[in-house]
Amino acid sequence: MTIKLHCFGESGNAYKAALALELAGLEWEVVKVDFFNGGSRTDAYREQNVMAEAPLLIDGDFSLSQSGAIQQYITDKTGKFGGEAAEKYEVLRWVLWDNHKLSSQAGMTRFLMNFLPEDKRPEQVIKFSQSRLAAAYNTLNMHLEGRDWIVGRNVTNADLSCCSYLYYPEPFGFNRTDFPNIDRWLGNISALDGWKHPYDLMPRAFPGAS
Amino acid sequence: MTIKLHCFGESGNAYKAALALELAGLEWEVVKVDFFNGGSRTDAYREQNVMAEAPLLIDGDFSLSQSGAIQQYITDKTGKFGGEAAEKYEVLRWVLWDNHKLSSQAGMTRFLMNFLPEDKRPEQVIKFSQSRLAAAYNTLNMHLEGRDWIVGRNVTNADLSCCSYLYYPEPFGFNRTDFPNIDRWLGNISALDGWKHPYDLMPRAFPGAS
Repeated sequence: MTIKLHCFGESGNAYKAALALELAGLEWEVVKVDFFNGGSRTDAYREQNVMAEAPLLIDGDFSLSQSGAIQQYITDKTGKFGGEAAEKYEVLRWVLWDNHKLSSQAGMTRFLMNFLPEDKRPEQVIKFSQSRLAAAYNTLNMHLEGRDWIVGRNVTNADLSCCSYLYYPEPFGFNRTDFPNIDRWLGNISALDGWKHPYDLMPRAFPGAS
Repeated sequence: MTIKLHCFGESGNAYKAALALELAGLEWEVVKVDFFNGGSRTDAYREQNVMAEAPLLIDGDFSLSQSGAIQQYITDKTGKFGGEAAEKYEVLRWVLWDNHKLSSQAGMTRFLMNFLPEDKRPEQVIKFSQSRLAAAYNTLNMHLEGRDWIVGRNVTNADLSCCSYLYYPEPFGFNRTDFPNIDRWLGNISALDGWKHPYDLMPRAFPGAS
């Protein structure tokens, strides 16, 4: 049975799951979520996922949301991206850190700066989030000094989680050339066999985008 | 060897780890982080944890940060709070959701409203975060309808993660009586044998607090 992923191109959280599915070589297909028209907040969608979020993975009778949990499911199914046994906690802590400090802020800031009408953008919130994000970029850049991957010697879910919003073209205050180690590491990920940009992996949902 | 937890009373993230250690019956002791005087951002601390955060667990030669990863470590060590085997992903997704949508926002909002001088509080940020939090409380309250615990029939890391900031007395816009299912569920957790309030489990770090 082909795995279905409810997702849309603009979601870096969906990208984390889509990229893991794709790089793991699993058979999967997209179910597009009409996010900007409230597609993740309908009663029917909430019936499947009370969190009212994308991504949502459906594998036969099994369904799962939250990108980090989906990544763990893919790891358990394929043996990929979990790192060595001794690295398990290190992978998990970077996935959690990403959800707590990096993607959560980056996704929101990019949304406010690009997907809201100009006169509705809360400037103080944007500036505040950008300053918190600067601290997160610094932490990641510091950690990547002398490393090719966040944990150990190979790509893991830690990389596939932390990278997600950093490939998008819309401005949200991140310039990869300001962070040489992040820049190099993003290059390592995009050089992986089978890597695709989020907009090549999932259909866009923003009205007018193609 | 007694486990050491670098923590401080005001941190709900530290509380998630401290409460899991305490309820699991492990031997552990506090190492107080002087957070409000920059104690988590010194070079020496960052040497131990590049994320410059509390909590940080030290168990002999092993060290680990991020509350959700520490909870997993405690589960692996004691067999507690992981839920049934089939519930593993459900526990993980609620821990991730908490980090992404609930604790990250609640912790920040409470900090801005209570631990910053009044004239430095960014009002637009506080209002914005409170409206995002309202959506998170609603999701959790909806999910807890007819349930005693977030996952399955017993307390798991999902509960010990999501509850953390909701026990604090400082105002940040959350009133448990507005959410009857959350209110009942918080009561279930605090009725557990050995439960302690964050300020009874960890020393306070805010200047002047006792």
